[in-house]
Amino acid sequence: MSGDSFIELDGGVTAPRHFVAGSVFAGIKKTNLSRPDIAFVHSTLPAVGAGVFTTNRVKSAPVRVSQAYLRNEETRTIVANSGNANACTGPIGIEHAKRMAKATARALEVKERSVLVCSTGRIGVPLPIEAMETAIAGGAATLCDDREASRRAAEAIMTSDSFSKECAVELDLDGVKVRIGGIAKGAGMIDPNMATMLSFVTTDAVIDKKLLRQALVDGVDGAFNRITVDGDMSTNDTVLVLANGAAGNAPLKDNTRAFERFQDALNHVLFNLARMIVEDGEGVTRFVTIQVRGAKTREESRQAAESVANSTLAKCSWFGGDPNWGRVMAAIGYSGARIREEMIDIYYDGLIAVQNGTGAPTPAEKLKKIVSARRFTITIDLHMGDADYTVYTTDLSTRYVELNMSE
Amino acid sequence: MSGDSFIELDGGVTAPRHFVAGSVFAGIKKTNLSRPDIAFVHSTLPAVGAGVFTTNRVKSAPVRVSQAYLRNEETRTIVANSGNANACTGPIGIEHAKRMAKATARALEVKERSVLVCSTGRIGVPLPIEAMETAIAGGAATLCDDREASRRAAEAIMTSDSFSKECAVELDLDGVKVRIGGIAKGAGMIDPNMATMLSFVTTDAVIDKKLLRQALVDGVDGAFNRITVDGDMSTNDTVLVLANGAAGNAPLKDNTRAFERFQDALNHVLFNLARMIVEDGEGVTRFVTIQVRGAKTREESRQAAESVANSTLAKCSWFGGDPNWGRVMAAIGYSGARIREEMIDIYYDGLIAVQNGTGAPTPAEKLKKIVSARRFTITIDLHMGDADYTVYTTDLSTRYVELNMSE
Repeated sequence: MSGDSFIELDGGVTAPRHFVAGSVFAGIKKTNLSRPDIAFVHSTLPAVGAGVFTTNRVKSAPVRVSQAYLRNEETRTIVANSGNANACTGPIGIEHAKRMAKATARALEVKERSVLVCSTGRIGVPLPIEAMETAIAGGAATLCDDREASRRAAEAIMTSDSFSKECAVELDLDGVKVRIGGIAKGAGMIDPNMATMLSFVTTDAVIDKKLLRQALVDGVDGAFNRITVDGDMSTNDTVLVLANGAAGNAPLKDNTRAFERFQDALNHVLFNLARMIVEDGEGVTRFVTIQVRGAKTREESRQAAESVANSTLAKCSWFGGDPNWGRVMAAIGYSGARIREEMIDIYYDGLIAVQNGTGAPTPAEKLKKIVSARRFTITIDLHMGDADYTVYTTDLSTRYVELNMSE
Repeated sequence: MSGDSFIELDGGVTAPRHFVAGSVFAGIKKTNLSRPDIAFVHSTLPAVGAGVFTTNRVKSAPVRVSQAYLRNEETRTIVANSGNANACTGPIGIEHAKRMAKATARALEVKERSVLVCSTGRIGVPLPIEAMETAIAGGAATLCDDREASRRAAEAIMTSDSFSKECAVELDLDGVKVRIGGIAKGAGMIDPNMATMLSFVTTDAVIDKKLLRQALVDGVDGAFNRITVDGDMSTNDTVLVLANGAAGNAPLKDNTRAFERFQDALNHVLFNLARMIVEDGEGVTRFVTIQVRGAKTREESRQAAESVANSTLAKCSWFGGDPNWGRVMAAIGYSGARIREEMIDIYYDGLIAVQNGTGAPTPAEKLKKIVSARRFTITIDLHMGDADYTVYTTDLSTRYVELNMSE
């Protein structure tokens, strides 16, 4: 992610050329706010798409429908609603997700199967589909390619997010300017029954569907797959990318310098959106980076990092500004990673806290000061091999519990 | 666990004949309370022992020492301290655990390797071993075989437990009265860096070391392995049993009716102690039984049950009295168990909440009432096979976070 290969732009999904966005109000949420609750992201040119979806075996209807529609060669449009997840809704849920796509296709004059569908919000309640179809019919009129259009779409997918999440970059590929932009919604969990991560990315690069999917999978692995707030995986998580080729660059090919630079820029957009999701987690007071080094395998380094990141006790101690490396040691111990206790070193922002599996002489006050800051990094060296892995997480606050104790 | 095969007694580890217990004060805890912090459980006759220990790969020094000493044929004594876990303490920790056993062996005139050692409390701090050796030297004088002696031992291993945990039963084996008694400490987590479960069980049954171990492993599988408060596994968890044969029954043999009845009674003691640990969990307002039925394999039913029991979001909703079956469905979905979403039924105290993977017509108010009670059962039928599994858990309250935000 070197800064010289691309520049950041102020923008989101409408930064790449020939992409428009918009939003409409369908009254899906229980609250009286008349904030738009349906977002559109659309390419005015033919485009291809790729998606990465939740691995939860309980999948929402829009996840199932979008997975099927992505088999279509062309993908031009994303329609997404907040306020209702359309999950655990049975056959009627599938019918409703299809009707969302169909209404959007009609309004934007594209093929039904070129539309992808997302939902976030309450589980187990049928969508108010008639009201949504009516609202969607008016959606075409809201589409615009300016800066604000992206923001309106980003706001329409917010649930309890406290700020809208957007990111855009521009890179130069042999004299051709290529842009990538994205929006996301995050781990806010008051109104929905479940935190859902949604992210939509657009690019005007010339890239085929297969390579676009490969780039997305790689990018998500370093971004959305690295963040955890509470270890609960949603039924609706979806990351989508659309590419319309409007930039006119030489078609991207795997294993080239140009593709590598495109991948770096895409990674940057995905990582930034993921980071914003963690920072905006409900009741979050700490943003914690967990680095595990020296595991025998990459899988084991991931196990150790995620075990620490999801330890209820460790997260409570961070909330209290308590370094409590004993809880970190215990979470490593039950992670499944092969370890030798007496080999483990642990650092807080580079200061050694555990040396050879036992307390290091660093004064407790210094460690407390680190863990009392908004951001800090815990580095764990297992000294067993060469594999490493990094995850990003939060503390667990009393406010988190209050926000999630009822829908 | 039929009630006719044994009767409950008011008592603990001193209910079986020729067992004594006691406690002394060594000043291990930071607080000024002069409550005893070292407990003894001791057989005045030769005895055999068995143990089940944490599977955490980070293991405390007393766990390592007790595992080694259990290879000795005779085991007569348990010495346990609260206030300091003697975990992550390096070679000096092993030395200290051995010195605890040695001091106890000298005081009680038994062999060093017939003494098992346990610790619970802060991680990463060396034991104040000299003060403990002095206190242990006076321990023999506190040993007594009466009802109160068991309570004093149970109290000496408490950390933030709000009540001491004891249980005892008597069964009749061909006219011979055999007793089993136990004490435990639980999932209180204020002062220690980590919740530790310790449980010590005594019996006057005639049973050999090998069969005793088998009975303990089976009993723990249905008791301590079924409870979860926060999914964090301690470095110190230990369940020990001593058998001294004082009852004089015909030696217990595997696959006999007598052994089966002994196992039932032992299971009852272990389960009752485990249940008390959950009920006394820090900040707990709900005791929740999660039953999973109809999984393809027992392992998958366990995965599904534990995933729901440890879901941060589901636990927060129980605290709020919110049935929120969507969070239960999601936790089943990411558990790793093979499921078909549309086959899942979920009941709250027998009332159907989810039918064929989607909301059942039971009024929300009825479900809310169930989840607002102190105890309720969630039954999940996957309809995939014949395997079932049950776990016992709690809600996640704001008080839990407050109690665990610093040591």
